[in-house]
Order: sequence, then C-alpha cells, then structure tokens
Amino acid sequence: MAGRERLLVIGGDAAGMSAASQARRRRGPDDLDVTVLERGHFASYSACGIPYYVGGMIDDADDLIARTPQEFRERGIDLRLCTEATEIDLDGARVRVREVDGGGETWEPYDQLMIATGAVPARPDLPGADAEGVHGVQVLDDGIAIRRVLDREKPRRVVVVGGGYIGLEMAEAMVTRGLDVTLVDAAEQPMSTLDPDMGALVADAIRDIGVDLRLGAGVEGFDTGSDGRVTAVRAGGRTIPADLVVLGLGVRPGTDLARAAGIETGPTGGIVTDRRMRTRTERVWAAGDCVENRHLVSGLPVAIALGTHANKQGRVAGVNIGGGYATFPGVAGTAVSKICHAEVARTGLNEREAAAAGFDTLGVVVESTTRAGYLPDTTAMKTKLVVERRSGRLLGAQIVGEANAAKRIDGLAIALWNRMTVEEMTGLDLGYAPPFSPVWDPVLIAARKAAELVEEDMRRSP
Amino acid sequence: MAGRERLLVIGGDAAGMSAASQARRRRGPDDLDVTVLERGHFASYSACGIPYYVGGMIDDADDLIARTPQEFRERGIDLRLCTEATEIDLDGARVRVREVDGGGETWEPYDQLMIATGAVPARPDLPGADAEGVHGVQVLDDGIAIRRVLDREKPRRVVVVGGGYIGLEMAEAMVTRGLDVTLVDAAEQPMSTLDPDMGALVADAIRDIGVDLRLGAGVEGFDTGSDGRVTAVRAGGRTIPADLVVLGLGVRPGTDLARAAGIETGPTGGIVTDRRMRTRTERVWAAGDCVENRHLVSGLPVAIALGTHANKQGRVAGVNIGGGYATFPGVAGTAVSKICHAEVARTGLNEREAAAAGFDTLGVVVESTTRAGYLPDTTAMKTKLVVERRSGRLLGAQIVGEANAAKRIDGLAIALWNRMTVEEMTGLDLGYAPPFSPVWDPVLIAARKAAELVEEDMRRSP
Repeated sequence: MAGRERLLVIGGDAAGMSAASQARRRRGPDDLDVTVLERGHFASYSACGIPYYVGGMIDDADDLIARTPQEFRERGIDLRLCTEATEIDLDGARVRVREVDGGGETWEPYDQLMIATGAVPARPDLPGADAEGVHGVQVLDDGIAIRRVLDREKPRRVVVVGGGYIGLEMAEAMVTRGLDVTLVDAAEQPMSTLDPDMGALVADAIRDIGVDLRLGAGVEGFDTGSDGRVTAVRAGGRTIPADLVVLGLGVRPGTDLARAAGIETGPTGGIVTDRRMRTRTERVWAAGDCVENRHLVSGLPVAIALGTHANKQGRVAGVNIGGGYATFPGVAGTAVSKICHAEVARTGLNEREAAAAGFDTLGVVVESTTRAGYLPDTTAMKTKLVVERRSGRLLGAQIVGEANAAKRIDGLAIALWNRMTVEEMTGLDLGYAPPFSPVWDPVLIAARKAAELVEEDMRRSP
Repeated sequence: MAGRERLLVIGGDAAGMSAASQARRRRGPDDLDVTVLERGHFASYSACGIPYYVGGMIDDADDLIARTPQEFRERGIDLRLCTEATEIDLDGARVRVREVDGGGETWEPYDQLMIATGAVPARPDLPGADAEGVHGVQVLDDGIAIRRVLDREKPRRVVVVGGGYIGLEMAEAMVTRGLDVTLVDAAEQPMSTLDPDMGALVADAIRDIGVDLRLGAGVEGFDTGSDGRVTAVRAGGRTIPADLVVLGLGVRPGTDLARAAGIETGPTGGIVTDRRMRTRTERVWAAGDCVENRHLVSGLPVAIALGTHANKQGRVAGVNIGGGYATFPGVAGTAVSKICHAEVARTGLNEREAAAAGFDTLGVVVESTTRAGYLPDTTAMKTKLVVERRSGRLLGAQIVGEANAAKRIDGLAIALWNRMTVEEMTGLDLGYAPPFSPVWDPVLIAARKAAELVEEDMRRSP
C-alpha cells in the first residue's frame, strides 16, 4: 500500500454515513482517513420519519437521529456539519468546500470520493412558491420548521400538494393533529405508482380519514397576503384557502455537483454506477438517492429515492472501498405506506410500467381478508397481481388494505425477485393460523386466480 | 368416456371437500357422481379455529363451518354426515359404509376413490386417560364438548398436556377465559419444531401470560374421583390438581383404513402419493393429514398435519380427478402461531432437522424491531436463520416476537423455496416505511449477519 489514503464523502445521510462506517470498519485510521461533508445541521437521521415527527407521534427530532456527530467522531469518522461541497475537481482529485455559516473556502483532497448528495425536491416554478408558509419536506430542518409553525402559529387549514407517499404521509400527520386538510394532485389518482383501479381504493381511504382530496387539480399558483405569507393555493381552477402549504411533489436525483464535474449520469438523471457502486470515473463512488438503479423486472434504469436502498448501496460502496467485495443487484420497486388505518404496498411493475418495458400482461384483483373470516377484527384487503401473458411470470403486485395487509408485499417481492410464475406460487408454503391468514392466504388466492387467467388467455388466443 | 363415473370421498373436511368441489367444478353431474362420507356431525369446518371458539373469541361453532351440507348438495355433492367408511375393498372397487347412529351397513361402489381420513390424535396409554373431564382437541365435536364443560361446569383449574401449537393455543384460550392454567410437556422446551434457544423465548412468553409451564414433565397418569371424573394429572413426579384436562399431544396420519386395504404408506406412516396426489394403487387418491409429504429443503418424507396443505392437496387431487393437471410440490415446514401477545413462526429446517438431513449448518439470531425504533408501539422480535456452511444456502428460519413479527416468515419461506443464499438475500428489496420496519428490515439484518458468519467460517476452516 502506498501509505494512508483519504476517503472524502459528500453527504452525511443514509448512503454517505453507511459508506463511511463500512469503510472505517474494514480499514483502520492508520490506513484510511474518513471525512464526511454535510451541508445541513444533521447527519444520519431518518428522513422517512419526518411525517411522524410533524404529526406528533415522535416528540423530539433528536429521536430521528441514529447516531450523533460525536459518536461518529469516536469511531474515527470526521463528520463536518454545515459544510458544503461546491465543486469537484477530478483532475486535481479535490473538492472545494464552503462553511455554510460564513467561513471561508478550502480545497479538500481525496484518494477515494464518495458522492451521496441525495435527492432534490421538485418545486413548482410558480408565483408564490417561495412565499412564507410554503414548506417542502426534504430534510430534517424542513420537518422542524413545519412543526414549529404548527406549534406556534396554530394554522387551521393546510393544503398538501402532491399525492405520492410523502404527500399522503404529511396529510395523515395533519389529520392526526386535527387540522382541515386538502390534498391536491394534478393526476387523476393518488399514488401514481399504483394502477388506477388500486389508486382509486387509496383515494377512498384518504377521503375516509377526512381529507378533502382534489384530483386532476394541478397547482396554478399561490396567493399571498400583504405580509407576504401564503393565503391560498390555486389548483384545478379553484382557490383553496391555506394557512400552511406542504409540498410533496416528488424528487429527482441531486447530481448538479457530479454533472458539473463531468461524472456520467443516465437517462433518469441519476449517476451511473456499476454493481459495486463505482461511477464511470476512476476513484469516484456514488450511492443513495443521487444514483440510477437497474430495475430487476424491467431491466430498465430507474431513479427511486428510498432510505432502504441508500443504506444498502452505501454499505456496498463502503465494503468495496474498504477492500471487500459486495454488490447491489438492483431494485424491484417495492414500497409500503400507511395512511391512518389504510395500508398500501406495491412491488415490481404496474401495468403501465410493464407495457413500457414491452411486456404483455394480465391483471387480477382479489378481495380477501388478513385473518380467518370468523375472527373478530378481521379486515378486508385487495391484492392485485400483474402477470406476463403466456409465461405466467409475476411482474408486479399491489396491495390496499388495513392492519396486517401491506407487509405481505415482501413475499411477493421475493417471488418476483426469483422470477416465479403464478402457477409455481400456488404451491407456496406460507404461514397459516387463523390470527394471521385465512386458510387460503391472500397471496395464494391471487396466484391461483392469476394462474387460471393465464390458462384461459392461452386457450382463447393460442 | 365409458358413461358416468363415481367419485367416492372418505372424509368431509378440508382435503375431502376441496377435492370434491374441484372435481365437481370440472365435471358435470352427468359425467361424475360425487359422494362424500363423513363420520362426524360436521363437514368443511376450520379445525384450526377450535381454540378461538373454546376461548370465546367466536360465539357460535357454526361460524367455523365454511359451507353447510345443504350448500354442498345444491352444488351436486352428495355429502353424507354420520356415515363411516369401515373397509376398502380394492378388488371390488367398493367401500363398506356404516351409519354411525345405528343404521345398517352397505357397500358403496367407486370408480375413483379419494382418501381424506385426516389425522389421529395421540392419546397416552395411561390409567385415567379416558376419564370424564379429559378431552382431546381434534374435531369440532371436541371443541363443542370442551366449551360446554367450560360454560356449564365452570372448572377453575385446567391442565393442558403438550406444548405444541394446539396445546399452546388451548392454553391461551383457557387464560383468556380467566382460568388457572398449567401446561405440562415431557420435552425441555415448548414447540419442539423450534431450536432450543428460540423455544426458550416461547417458554418465557407463555409464563408471561400467566401459564404455569412445567417442562421435562412427562405425563404419568390421571387421577380420578369416586364419580370417575378426572381430579389431577400426574406429571414429572408431581400431582397437579385439575378440573379439566386438555390433551394436545400431536397427531399421526389416520391411515388404518388405507393400510388394511393394502394401500402403500411411507416411513412417516402417511399414505404415499405422487405429485398429483395419486396413491400407488390404481384409481385411489389421497390428500390432507393422512398423506406423507416431501420436504422441499431436506428432500425427506415428512407428515405435517395442517389445514393449508390439506386444502391445497385436496384441490390438486380434485383438479386431476376432474381431468385437469395440477401438482403439489411438497412442503417447506412453514408454521405460525399466536399465544396472546406472543407470535411464533418457523419455516424450513431447524438445526436438528438439518443435521439429520446431513447438512452442516451455521445459526444466527438477531434482535430487531418490527417498526422503526423511534415510533411508539415498536416491539422487539428475534429472528434466527439456519444456513448451510460454505454455500450459505438458507435452510430454515424461526421468529419469536409480538405484533407484526410472525407473518414475516412468509418472505423467508419463499426465499428458501427458491434456494436463495443469505448473501443474495442481503440485496432483497423489501417494503420499508417507519410503521412497517426499521430501515434495515429484520430479515435483511439477519441475512447480513448470516452472510458474514458464512464468510468467517470459510476463513477459519478453509
């Protein structure tokens, strides 16, 4: 070895800190210096926990922080908060760094560079979008700001913009706090990662908890008062009064820094890496929301911002930087969400995604229960399978139900990960006892119906 | 076709009625006559639901009955209750039938014979085992009898004999009803399908709900009073007073009828069938608790009495009898159980079973939580993986925890069904959101630890 190396990590959240920790674990301080640059006030926190902090299920924002900067320092990781990387100089193998709170600029050299710059929230380029009272939900600072507004200013009417996971979870948080909540979305259904028939069930569930859901209502602008604060959201031709606006419009990979340096990005906008999380540039690694992933069912590149991927990819990068061998095989598009009593899950491809990938599909929706029907507290759940014609290969699944419904998606995710056909799945040995499942588990019922459909389809159009 | 055929089914529970229904669905009454002989008072009920009826979670025994005899008759299935098959005459292709309530005997001819005679409960061959107040839990009549005793005689002290699933579920039922419950088992742990370390966790959970658990306490006899009623159970050298005794000592395949006719049974005592549920005898089929299964991990024959297998096998037999094609691939040994707040699950092979099949294994136990640790109502769960040395193939898994723990076994069952290695499993895309899982799902944490263990083992003993 040519003496001590330096790993410089840009971004101190899930991917960055996982990589730093793994590399440190495998290579001692005499062999590797590990420095992490994080522009925010916090590192290593659960961004997915923000809605629960805002909703008041968690009292203290510190509870979302997995490890403090001090803990990282004790492990030999030099974590620098409020420190922003502003430029990557590949030829000089160095990164320009600025103290966010007004310090000077310096150049930090690296031997290995890890880019974990996360995602950038979409913000509508509309009048009033930056007004006071309009909040994004991206970093913990955003969550703290929203909660401060809720606690101090006691807003009554909240408009949430965007019906994806984050928008729905924020709507739940606001309902939990007893506020009047309107949710607007330009699409005709919430959760566009579901097929329309399953999305309609989610819409029903959201309305059931008291949210005024307005679909097909794209945001046109934000009205402000004489004090510059937001007073209303204009969407779908109407004006909706608002004391507080929460933007949950989705995110894109945060790659400005990488692109400016010439690091390759793919068609989704994410940084291109190989299975070991190496970029196309020597000595530069990337992981988390800023990278592009391979979808294991479609084979196509996708950008999916999710903490679980960020953690895994960061760990894989760290193992490899640390001299080990690990790979990230790709994603299956699995996601779960809970909105009050409603549970929603999906994995693989929906019908639209499958068609875009060139698959000809059959879809089946079955209604079943989470427990034996004769037990009290049994709840209904709907399971949809998206299946390839002819082969019967499982391509995707969606679940909408209540308690004990959504996590069943894991079995379906593992089934499609292993390229199972629905016919094979009818024989699966799943856990059965009355408190957990009817004697035919919903997954088995769905597989059976889908297998029958594949057979019928084959007979009808040989 | 040579005119109308007759399918005769012996046994009207899960396997028998599934077969009858499937065959009927595929072949009309002009083509196939379907007659089912059931010696009990009920058919097509959930035997697994009996503990919940005894415990009072279900008011009416009728709620456990999926379909009434009348409903079957309307579908063209001649279901005869209280009608016992007493002999199979293979050469004559006929079955001797006796009316249980005192009618005469007749011979019923068949073209296809379906044997679905279920399981026979183990009863200790000990003095007093047949005394009044000592009850088995096998058929719905048993459950009704126990509930009648509970309602009318108000027993106070109950002794449950046997710490398997049924014994534990009956103990829960008795605790739910506020009785003093002692559970005795000859083994040193409850649930012998778990490894001792996981079984110890179940023992703790059972004691936590107030059951007086006595392990290593084999039953030696039953004391009776002058009225012939049971007064105590003698076990492990002690005398335990009892107003009511429930036997949950496991079952064996109910094959007396088949054996007497010369139909082949295997080393487990169950009837041998092929994947289509055909016995080795022409025109004779079998399904459910009376058959022997192939274990998909060990490759060895096993007898596992479980409603979910009975339903699947019955359906497979019915499809084939009906002229279609379906197969039952084997079992993975998956089981789940709930005892008050405790949840228990297992799949594949435990360490003992794996060793018996010739596997050299590594075991890993991880403690994790069912939800993100910062959320309220998060509960701890322990996950054990049994893994083959060198290959890292997942051979088995066990879970002990509380709410939302046990059904995670399904993902592990599907992983070992597909012969995944723990290294492959570390990349699995499982559903993540704080109400459903920590950012590293317990399954992923366990897979990661196991993969590390496999690697270490390989380095230590190359």
